[in-house]
Amino acid sequence: MSKSVCLVLGAGAGIGGTVGKRFAREGYHAVLCRRSDQEGLDRLVAEIRQGGGRASGYLLNAVEENSIEERVAAVEAEIGPIEVAVYNLGAQIGDRALLETRYKAFETGWRMATFGLFRLATALCPAMAARGGGTLLVTSSTASMRGNAGQHSHAAAMGGRRMLCQSLNAEFGPQGVHVVHIVIDGAVDAPDTLGKLLGPERFQALRDTRGRADGLMQPELIAETYLHLARQHRSTWTHEIDLRSFSDRAWWNH
Amino acid sequence: MSKSVCLVLGAGAGIGGTVGKRFAREGYHAVLCRRSDQEGLDRLVAEIRQGGGRASGYLLNAVEENSIEERVAAVEAEIGPIEVAVYNLGAQIGDRALLETRYKAFETGWRMATFGLFRLATALCPAMAARGGGTLLVTSSTASMRGNAGQHSHAAAMGGRRMLCQSLNAEFGPQGVHVVHIVIDGAVDAPDTLGKLLGPERFQALRDTRGRADGLMQPELIAETYLHLARQHRSTWTHEIDLRSFSDRAWWNH
Amino acid sequence: MSKSVCLVLGAGAGIGGTVGKRFAREGYHAVLCRRSDQEGLDRLVAEIRQGGGRASGYLLNAVEENSIEERVAAVEAEIGPIEVAVYNLGAQIGDRALLETRYKAFETGWRMATFGLFRLATALCPAMAARGGGTLLVTSSTASMRGNAGQHSHAAAMGGRRMLCQSLNAEFGPQGVHVVHIVIDGAVDAPDTLGKLLGPERFQALRDTRGRADGLMQPELIAETYLHLARQHRSTWTHEIDLRSFSDRAWWNH
Amino acid sequence: MSKSVCLVLGAGAGIGGTVGKRFAREGYHAVLCRRSDQEGLDRLVAEIRQGGGRASGYLLNAVEENSIEERVAAVEAEIGPIEVAVYNLGAQIGDRALLETRYKAFETGWRMATFGLFRLATALCPAMAARGGGTLLVTSSTASMRGNAGQHSHAAAMGGRRMLCQSLNAEFGPQGVHVVHIVIDGAVDAPDTLGKLLGPERFQALRDTRGRADGLMQPELIAETYLHLARQHRSTWTHEIDLRSFSDRAWWNH
Repeated sequence: MSKSVCLVLGAGAGIGGTVGKRFAREGYHAVLCRRSDQEGLDRLVAEIRQGGGRASGYLLNAVEENSIEERVAAVEAEIGPIEVAVYNLGAQIGDRALLETRYKAFETGWRMATFGLFRLATALCPAMAARGGGTLLVTSSTASMRGNAGQHSHAAAMGGRRMLCQSLNAEFGPQGVHVVHIVIDGAVDAPDTLGKLLGPERFQALRDTRGRADGLMQPELIAETYLHLARQHRSTWTHEIDLRSFSDRAWWNH
Repeated sequence: MSKSVCLVLGAGAGIGGTVGKRFAREGYHAVLCRRSDQEGLDRLVAEIRQGGGRASGYLLNAVEENSIEERVAAVEAEIGPIEVAVYNLGAQIGDRALLETRYKAFETGWRMATFGLFRLATALCPAMAARGGGTLLVTSSTASMRGNAGQHSHAAAMGGRRMLCQSLNAEFGPQGVHVVHIVIDGAVDAPDTLGKLLGPERFQALRDTRGRADGLMQPELIAETYLHLARQHRSTWTHEIDLRSFSDRAWWNH
Repeated sequence: MSKSVCLVLGAGAGIGGTVGKRFAREGYHAVLCRRSDQEGLDRLVAEIRQGGGRASGYLLNAVEENSIEERVAAVEAEIGPIEVAVYNLGAQIGDRALLETRYKAFETGWRMATFGLFRLATALCPAMAARGGGTLLVTSSTASMRGNAGQHSHAAAMGGRRMLCQSLNAEFGPQGVHVVHIVIDGAVDAPDTLGKLLGPERFQALRDTRGRADGLMQPELIAETYLHLARQHRSTWTHEIDLRSFSDRAWWNH
Repeated sequence: MSKSVCLVLGAGAGIGGTVGKRFAREGYHAVLCRRSDQEGLDRLVAEIRQGGGRASGYLLNAVEENSIEERVAAVEAEIGPIEVAVYNLGAQIGDRALLETRYKAFETGWRMATFGLFRLATALCPAMAARGGGTLLVTSSTASMRGNAGQHSHAAAMGGRRMLCQSLNAEFGPQGVHVVHIVIDGAVDAPDTLGKLLGPERFQALRDTRGRADGLMQPELIAETYLHLARQHRSTWTHEIDLRSFSDRAWWNH
């Protein structure tokens, strides 16, 4: 029997995996996709199942041709219609001066942050519209709102993502597909991304100074907002929302 | 015994009163303030009490000197600390060409939309900060994001409101006070505001065409988002969010 | 014989007076208005006249009832039609915490930055439209784009100004009146404003460190951009432009 | 003898070629590059030379590997240091629903609008910084500010362009390189782009209705603003400016 599915692209130990778990608790079949770390993926799936939820996990390289398209088709054929999709692939490569930003990195940033979303939307939005509705939650970042030194690749990719979200919303909103651009404007307590970017020592230091419960955004709490957005009735939709810690400055103030 | 309070300024039959009711259901003592219509106010308070909630109602003319300040002081002294405040006073006067926008109207718009919020914040935010936290939910509008023909008064007042919210957030966020600027970017099914602006016949026609459940934002659903925002943990706060119907164009598309 | 007039409200030794001088060089009769310092005003007028230009100077308190309206009427009756108006009144009061921002200061900020512009526009834009065109150049600031700690009054007033400019543009643009919102996003080498805000010693120190020619915006150079904007053909108008020094960060980066 | 050069990428009969001519009149050696139409290119170069200016023309396919990099290197080696570069490559493909927007078109849009600018900046900005300064004028569009139905490819590409401009500005501004993001927010009287998009009949009809001198932006007038921007002293730089006809609505109003 088909059941409604929540597909997560970029289901690491931070926002993506945690959102998947949260939706599984609500009865969705969580389909978790990530590029690497089969072990971590299996652990996440097992955790959900042990909690009584339903989940499947797949390694998926989003920059590979057809990877997203085939996964969407397989999920819809084998598990059920995707009701909620979470596009959680980042393209942060840390601050890099222009000359240290290789063409390859710039292109990969776009493939991850912009083109991958376009491909997912192409595979999914018309089908959602034909079914009368669906939700596409797009994790985004400060760099989608403004460029900055060292952010050539990241900001260009995320700025494209934001404008694409608005374009998708304009075409598919009236057809019942809810597209949300979620601006994560601060540090997330996520070992897979921020942790790797900083390295274990600096990440631990940040956790120690900033306070894990307060100064860093907790994926569990972010997931509550994702869930709220997915539950909004179509008469009262949010298209753009920002999230940051009380102790962080908003992007327009730093 | 003091209990936590949700104060609503602008508690008519639309967003304000409905948000008050919603918070009362969560156990808050709803303090509802509106400029006129004692009867409607009494009905709202009675409704909440019949549902097992706690509520008080006051007529309050926000443009009158000390009206807001005295109400805040009285509520905190007599009922309990204000944990959540909802600033829901609008300043929409319909589309008016410049020469039809009187100085008086322009000034009143500012007194309602900008100065009233400043006065509320002055009376409340430092006290909230001293208590370690609090939430200020500010209903705002399309006109806070862009001016337009006929919107001289409304846009100037709301643009000021938005920048004030950002300023309050920058000062009080780090002290635990959560300020949210909520952009209501579409028509709300609210007889007291949109209904009066359009007149009963055009309002009914709009309800008939646009479909009450879908094409107009329902205050009950808006209230769910207000509640979600008030519940956000301080590590994961939203400062700005927009709301519109799936069938409405976003402000940047019309 | 009537000649075309450039009216400057806020004609101190910084942007306002310098823009007036620049337009006088182009043949405009510069009408310079400022709140105080008759001597400085006389000097400015004399300087323009010695250079072969035409100028008149008036003390004008923009927050006083009818001050702007009567000046506009008198200028148009006695000197000539106002072709270009420069609204250059600031409302910067330095950084002040909420509790140090008095109601009076907040209201004055609005009267200077928002209401004064509304009054000028009411007195002038319909007349310009009736004459087939005109230009309204509005000096604005970083605070019109985003609020910040200590900027409660300034940001609220300037945010209102920006939305008012957009509203004026939407109504009067199609009638040939060019409204430009000019975001001065950095420190100007202006003894009357920044100089007073910082005090003579800190101002001199800033000039010494930042380099007068480079690190601080020179009013003479700003005036070139004002002139360019006033000269734009109506098929190719700018509504919003920002200005800052190469050594300043843009507002979205700090 | 080497002389200062103005390089234009996208030098058709609209903004690009006209800006090239305008800078040639100021004494720059105009290096005009366009993808096709050798004849049109030759005509443009001849026109400039007949007017006493210096110009060279090259066919250049910006999406081809190394095309931009090699041209920059050759110009700097053979003609002189590039003082001003105009990036004028568009990526408008007309309104297309998501399913009509092929992957190839989406990728080409990015290659033209975003990646090409990144490549130019990589080839040029560090050299400009090493020489103490330079100017990069980037033609952009409404779609860089907001997405819309049918604009999936165009808006994603232009949104990336805008964020890239801000990132370049943040890194290279302090080194003396002036990056300007110019938002062309309306219809340009350009036979090569708008003319081709609409077809000859609809384009002529638009010229007839809208009035060539007024309702459509004239490339000659746009070029005046480009020139003004290139002449701004580094203490008083514009990073972002919009341009539209008085008879056009601003993007935030439609």
